[in-house]
Amino acid sequence: MTDSLPIRTTNAEVWRVNVRTQSIAREPTPESWQRLGGRGLTARILLDEVPAACEPLGPQNKLLFCPGLLVGHKLSSCDRISVGGKSPLTGGVKEANAGGTTGLQMSYLGIKALIIEEVPAQAGWWVLVLDKNGGHFEAADDLRGLGVHDSAGKLIERHGTKVAIALIGPGGEMKLAAAGIQNLDKERRPSRMAARGGLGAVMGSKGLKAIVFDAEGCAKPPIAHPEAFKEAQKRFTKAVLEHPQSAVYRDYGTAAVARLAYSFGALPTRNFSAGDFEKMEAISGETLRQTILERDGEGDPSHACMPGCTIRSSNVFPDVNGKCVVSPLEYETIALMGTNLGIGELDAIARLNMAADDIGIDTIEIGAALGVAAEAGLLQFGDWARALELLHEIRAGTPLGRILGSGATITGKVLGVEHVPAVKGQAMSGYEPRAIKGTGVTYATSPQGADHTAGLTIRDKVDHRDPKGQAALSRTKQINMAGYDSLGACIFSGFGFSLVPDVIAALLNARYDWNVGTDILQVLGREALKIEREFNRQAGFTPAHDRLPEYMTREALPPLGPVFDVPEEDLDGVFNW
Amino acid sequence: MTDSLPIRTTNAEVWRVNVRTQSIAREPTPESWQRLGGRGLTARILLDEVPAACEPLGPQNKLLFCPGLLVGHKLSSCDRISVGGKSPLTGGVKEANAGGTTGLQMSYLGIKALIIEEVPAQAGWWVLVLDKNGGHFEAADDLRGLGVHDSAGKLIERHGTKVAIALIGPGGEMKLAAAGIQNLDKERRPSRMAARGGLGAVMGSKGLKAIVFDAEGCAKPPIAHPEAFKEAQKRFTKAVLEHPQSAVYRDYGTAAVARLAYSFGALPTRNFSAGDFEKMEAISGETLRQTILERDGEGDPSHACMPGCTIRSSNVFPDVNGKCVVSPLEYETIALMGTNLGIGELDAIARLNMAADDIGIDTIEIGAALGVAAEAGLLQFGDWARALELLHEIRAGTPLGRILGSGATITGKVLGVEHVPAVKGQAMSGYEPRAIKGTGVTYATSPQGADHTAGLTIRDKVDHRDPKGQAALSRTKQINMAGYDSLGACIFSGFGFSLVPDVIAALLNARYDWNVGTDILQVLGREALKIEREFNRQAGFTPAHDRLPEYMTREALPPLGPVFDVPEEDLDGVFNW
Repeated sequence: MTDSLPIRTTNAEVWRVNVRTQSIAREPTPESWQRLGGRGLTARILLDEVPAACEPLGPQNKLLFCPGLLVGHKLSSCDRISVGGKSPLTGGVKEANAGGTTGLQMSYLGIKALIIEEVPAQAGWWVLVLDKNGGHFEAADDLRGLGVHDSAGKLIERHGTKVAIALIGPGGEMKLAAAGIQNLDKERRPSRMAARGGLGAVMGSKGLKAIVFDAEGCAKPPIAHPEAFKEAQKRFTKAVLEHPQSAVYRDYGTAAVARLAYSFGALPTRNFSAGDFEKMEAISGETLRQTILERDGEGDPSHACMPGCTIRSSNVFPDVNGKCVVSPLEYETIALMGTNLGIGELDAIARLNMAADDIGIDTIEIGAALGVAAEAGLLQFGDWARALELLHEIRAGTPLGRILGSGATITGKVLGVEHVPAVKGQAMSGYEPRAIKGTGVTYATSPQGADHTAGLTIRDKVDHRDPKGQAALSRTKQINMAGYDSLGACIFSGFGFSLVPDVIAALLNARYDWNVGTDILQVLGREALKIEREFNRQAGFTPAHDRLPEYMTREALPPLGPVFDVPEEDLDGVFNW
Repeated sequence: MTDSLPIRTTNAEVWRVNVRTQSIAREPTPESWQRLGGRGLTARILLDEVPAACEPLGPQNKLLFCPGLLVGHKLSSCDRISVGGKSPLTGGVKEANAGGTTGLQMSYLGIKALIIEEVPAQAGWWVLVLDKNGGHFEAADDLRGLGVHDSAGKLIERHGTKVAIALIGPGGEMKLAAAGIQNLDKERRPSRMAARGGLGAVMGSKGLKAIVFDAEGCAKPPIAHPEAFKEAQKRFTKAVLEHPQSAVYRDYGTAAVARLAYSFGALPTRNFSAGDFEKMEAISGETLRQTILERDGEGDPSHACMPGCTIRSSNVFPDVNGKCVVSPLEYETIALMGTNLGIGELDAIARLNMAADDIGIDTIEIGAALGVAAEAGLLQFGDWARALELLHEIRAGTPLGRILGSGATITGKVLGVEHVPAVKGQAMSGYEPRAIKGTGVTYATSPQGADHTAGLTIRDKVDHRDPKGQAALSRTKQINMAGYDSLGACIFSGFGFSLVPDVIAALLNARYDWNVGTDILQVLGREALKIEREFNRQAGFTPAHDRLPEYMTREALPPLGPVFDVPEEDLDGVFNW
């Protein structure tokens, strides 16, 4: 359908929604925001409009949706949105991005930034519907307490199959700090989560169960120089297809990294108490692919989450009868809800994944919280049935469920566990920082809290256990990733861009009639990081917060025995560029 | 007994206990620590020896016991100890002080500072016994899980009636962030709690159920100029007895302030949602005194917690049959576990108080946590039986109990409640900061977190709702209180000192052969605050943390309608002296 859309001639605007007055205003994009997009724009708006010391679930926080700069033309895996706000999990700046179809529909609607303000005047749940005429609120009391999947089904029934939807589950309704915001993939599964940092709780605090983006009757965003754009797009797509890593991720998905992490002794195991796991092969990317292929039915080892993506690193995991259990089953979930809990069965991990998805909570944060709970004796490592029970506790909102749903750090505090793998209140993902020290630097220093997508170093050809040079490596990665997140580009599109680095400038110049240089990725990345750091500074963050948990600096990680020993001076110098 | 003690000729030493190796070393007091005591000394040791960013319940934190500079000679209400460490509740510097008999016994043992280091090599519970020969560890597995009262009874049976004991209850064993450390009063009730900031959890992390201080065969600390000391002591005692406030507190205890707070619309009511309470008269100091007097038996409206105290602001609250329910019943408990929960019956509050005492948890923090829980719907305001049930949950260590036992801030985060009356993670006490703005400045800016004892302003003759001048008033109070806390002087001895301010220097000069000036109180206070602020800076605190909860700056407090509007510049200037 969208290929036949006309081209819009007007610039994208800022849509400002006040949930207290239920009013919607469209405003021209301010000059200083125009050259920003995605992560960089969420950071800028936060710093410009949200008091950094505000209560994250109070009326002064804002929830932001910003498509990346390249969104709108089905460039391969470049149609992602950034969701932003002050994080209830970290107390600092937060950007969580997601694929799916929301970015495209926002760009067709001509939304440069959606800014959701205030808290409702009275308790209740609403669906915000945005369309060519502006938008309106619909009562959503019938969706209250429903899982993400049932909610999406009802909304699609009501609004048709062409809309995009961003929505929360019971986790966001309960304002749990591990709650994320789900988005529809191209098959309309609500499976693409802006997961990290609790932005689902912020959406819950705004009384919004869902936002429907209906681009019916709208137009594609304009391209200043269509021929130049087309030429650059061709070069980019060719590079993506040619990069050897693209084929790896197409075949094995992100789970390809399990063997690699294991080989470095960096596979988080039993609440980050070891870096290897005896059942690694059972959860590897290779086994994952084989399992999907062996089972007939709805399974798919290589699935695209966004229209136009040629990498297709996502997947659809079926049960033994071929029925879809969850999509996608990603490495970080396999690590955090699998190896980290001593669970070595993909079928079990898939069920845990689906349960968490339906509640609308971050599988990384919850997996880490369950690992901490296991250390506290609330489940035996390996007991996936008990882990599933604990997810049911979260869904039911019991006191124990609310503890876990508040994330790993709170879980550790409440249960009296010192071993909490988190920084700035946000849990680490599937890379042990003692064994992959560059990623440890990223965890420690990213303004986002522990987050591998902020700058992963595991694929770089360095000695990952040597503390030397890791800060510089992390710096490069963090800058690039903040750049990609501003473009709306998936981490894997970076493979393509790395082969033809000048193509980013070519695409942006053709799209916007700009004249940016070939270092635009780094320019965008550095600016985003600088703004995020300033927001965090105003929120009360200092170098003391740019540290890994103390125990990782003194307790050696089996089997290889590293501690995290990157000097504090190196950590403090990451942002001195 | 103690009056017949000989005078020691040696200086007090530093006793250093390693709970991992179970070794005890006595060291001369370093030069730079000699002129410090109590709060100032705990701050100095923390800054000198504890990495500010360390994990509070890990091996790098230390638990400190330091008698104040005037301790050891039964000056009226001047024999208090300061307990110190990095707080698991606030993540910053912590000093909590207590009366009772621990200070005297420590001074007879010649302990300038007791420094408890490391964590046990294996799980288990021990009693640390300190006596004239040094000290030793005794297994305490029989005390595990016992309440403070049963534990104290067994220890007294074992070690005799003359020892002092500092001990924790189940709260400290569970490492709950609201756990305190109880000390025996002069009737050997374990009722004098170093309550605030979770130092009971730090003691629990050290594997210590109790510390027994046995001064048998020891001597009183030396006095350089006995005649001068005696003369100064006489002047001080006379002043204490003459000050009109002393009589008020002798007759009514701290509960005298209930009517005063009510008159300013500052009585915390129903989770700090109002400043008046319709049943105020039923919980006033006057009713408290009358109730105690009317009931025969063990009750006592005017009780001294330390030998030699002439103020006797403590009390013993009996039930209708005259049997002691709790001692003391203080204003802050009446406010936080009474009015703050909508409870207007002294008998009910006394039972809640006793239950919390026996678990060994801070009644202020827990009262605030229960208020937050009430707002979350877990109890109805006024339902004291349900509040008692919730205390039983804490004791049993259920998930809900652990949430509450982790304090008001964590309770709010887990239960999704924005209205949490706390600063730096520590709950406010019985003074609404919107109505008593000087105390609000203290709550906001004290390095200790919200704490009325750090600088209470309610008795000053100012317009408490006028934001002007409150920062300067708080500054003066904070300096003086940090000074009193360094002397080991109860807040009420300050009444006496205020009439004869030069007597502090006279006492110190006579005691130590010093030559300090009459501004020594302020010199000690400023130095303590400066060191505490530096520790907090290194721990990651910034001006963003020197703020009241955001809602108090925008939601007006009934019945008089104030918001907290002291300008942020004023808050940031409190420590610019």
